[in-house]
Amino acid sequence: VNRGDLLERAIASISPLDDDVAAETARLLDAKTKPPRSLGRLEELACRLAAIRGRVPEGPLRPAIVVAAADHGVAARGVSAYPNEVTAQMLANFAGGGAAICVLAREAGAGLVIVDAGVIGGVAVVDGVRAEVVDGVRCTDDLTIGPAMPRSTAIGMIERGIALAEELAADGVQVLGLGEMGIANTTSASALTAALLPAEPSQVCGPGTGIDDEGLARKVDAVRRGLAANRLPRRDADPADVLSAVGGLEVAFLVGVTLGAAARRIPVLLDGFVSSVAGLVATGFRESAAASLIAATRSPEPGHAPVLQRLGLEPLLDLGLRLGEGAGAALALPLVRSAIAILTDMATFDAAGVDGPAPAVEPRLAAGDA
Amino acid sequence: VNRGDLLERAIASISPLDDDVAAETARLLDAKTKPPRSLGRLEELACRLAAIRGRVPEGPLRPAIVVAAADHGVAARGVSAYPNEVTAQMLANFAGGGAAICVLAREAGAGLVIVDAGVIGGVAVVDGVRAEVVDGVRCTDDLTIGPAMPRSTAIGMIERGIALAEELAADGVQVLGLGEMGIANTTSASALTAALLPAEPSQVCGPGTGIDDEGLARKVDAVRRGLAANRLPRRDADPADVLSAVGGLEVAFLVGVTLGAAARRIPVLLDGFVSSVAGLVATGFRESAAASLIAATRSPEPGHAPVLQRLGLEPLLDLGLRLGEGAGAALALPLVRSAIAILTDMATFDAAGVDGPAPAVEPRLAAGDA
Repeated sequence: VNRGDLLERAIASISPLDDDVAAETARLLDAKTKPPRSLGRLEELACRLAAIRGRVPEGPLRPAIVVAAADHGVAARGVSAYPNEVTAQMLANFAGGGAAICVLAREAGAGLVIVDAGVIGGVAVVDGVRAEVVDGVRCTDDLTIGPAMPRSTAIGMIERGIALAEELAADGVQVLGLGEMGIANTTSASALTAALLPAEPSQVCGPGTGIDDEGLARKVDAVRRGLAANRLPRRDADPADVLSAVGGLEVAFLVGVTLGAAARRIPVLLDGFVSSVAGLVATGFRESAAASLIAATRSPEPGHAPVLQRLGLEPLLDLGLRLGEGAGAALALPLVRSAIAILTDMATFDAAGVDGPAPAVEPRLAAGDA
Repeated sequence: VNRGDLLERAIASISPLDDDVAAETARLLDAKTKPPRSLGRLEELACRLAAIRGRVPEGPLRPAIVVAAADHGVAARGVSAYPNEVTAQMLANFAGGGAAICVLAREAGAGLVIVDAGVIGGVAVVDGVRAEVVDGVRCTDDLTIGPAMPRSTAIGMIERGIALAEELAADGVQVLGLGEMGIANTTSASALTAALLPAEPSQVCGPGTGIDDEGLARKVDAVRRGLAANRLPRRDADPADVLSAVGGLEVAFLVGVTLGAAARRIPVLLDGFVSSVAGLVATGFRESAAASLIAATRSPEPGHAPVLQRLGLEPLLDLGLRLGEGAGAALALPLVRSAIAILTDMATFDAAGVDGPAPAVEPRLAAGDA
């Protein structure tokens, strides 16, 4: 199967977690002036970041968030509370700095890369938006009828994402958050989930940005018909086949970003349901890509929990976010920063002259020093 | 009962949440370019902050964290993994900038107020530490034998806390985090919890900073004996009685900070178990003080959940922290900042030219514009 040179190279470059570096980080943290492991998940996060990077961080990791937007043919099936046009309008809002992710990325001190991954009319938006359109495809086809996009388009979008990750790595970005936007994209993400886990469509479809019960019924029906029209799930389908069948252009792009980041030992913060599905597809190309992933937030969308379970991830935050855009990833960045700061900036027991817990105290007491 | 003028005045000044301001904040958030309520708890947080303040915030709230440290006579009962001396050593570490809370407050851009609320030898530490010692009491008495401190000392410490909150309010601080440190202070906090809820000592004692099973058994026993020696729980005990019986000097101080902040409409971020118990004691003086509280983090300490339930609070974070010091409060501050930023900095649907959800779209469709 042709998967393209860039994709093959990225897949081949993905390393597992560096367990030695994780252990060294844990040792350094245990020497800090606090009861061992008393900073809980913050310490686990520091160890995981170090293990992904393959070295103990010596200062803050430079963050960026990639928000990819694209349109979905399945929107015609009445699966969203919003009209199709909102994708292009939100792309302009991202560029104008007024969207939630613009505000949250600013608060987190993160760079923001806005990607037009195939938005109808998106070409009109230029300033501050990176156009990543392959073969002129500006919207997927309706997945309930047949493939959402040609396989070559899916591969092309993945390779665009890999190229962006490589560019960001070269620019010094050290941690990446994934964001997405696209009217009807939770329908596509639910179809990908149902095909890949596999799972029953009714178990992985939810209200998305807020459809009513009738809309949800249409969504489940669209996913069912999409799987049937594309003969999914099936064992011999590779992840590029599944992407081209029921995926989205922005998700394909984020799959590439994930693989490219994993190849460069850049930790990837998943956001909500849709970006986590991009992580799931990436692990279909190489299982160990999951090692580079960190779940920022738990989505109320019912498909999110089984996807996270498959990826072996427990989210850092649980704030009931159902926006996407990378909002949860941005909100988790201060935790990333603080996890590293604990490691680099806290005093050790020795340096601060603080007694450690009981085992370290006993010899001192034995010397008659109490 | 004599409770002191400052305390009486603070209690009398506490206002309930401003529901109109909360509703106005929710309306403003619903006009922003996102599906309604899709930022979940971040939006709830913005509404609560506004309702506590009594006005819709127009910019970031200036944060500070108060860390109060004190020694506990009950430490002699072998209820902690660390020796008593560590309290003074950590006070010096706070002043030196090497402790976890120093690093985390810096990351959160929060001012840090370090309080010696009665640390043995604490007088030697001067720079950067605020001495708040009443009647020369530098350690509580062993609560397993009788009252931990005179009632007048408890009232005096509360009033010192109120005075600090008033001073910080005058300095322009707009949101406060509570932190504490004191070897054996989870034993005292467990005794306060058992007396106030009331609850069985074995249900509210936990490993604290990390004692073993034998230490935990000693802790439960110490709490049982402390309640018996002080004839607790009992109906006619007011919160100052309970504080003087089994409380800590740092907790009494934080009770005052909480009441003083509530009186000035300053939101108070509780940290872990011990600071939440300070919040619980504060509501004993006036139930509506709970309206000013925000739970930053969920502690694994078993007493924390029933205390939060009594206070009607759901923590923002659940990171398995068991350090205290205000670490969780500091880690929640970026969420406070982002909640306000969403409110002040995001574009509205109107301003950004983005279509709203279905109800707003229908008239447009009816006009033949689709």
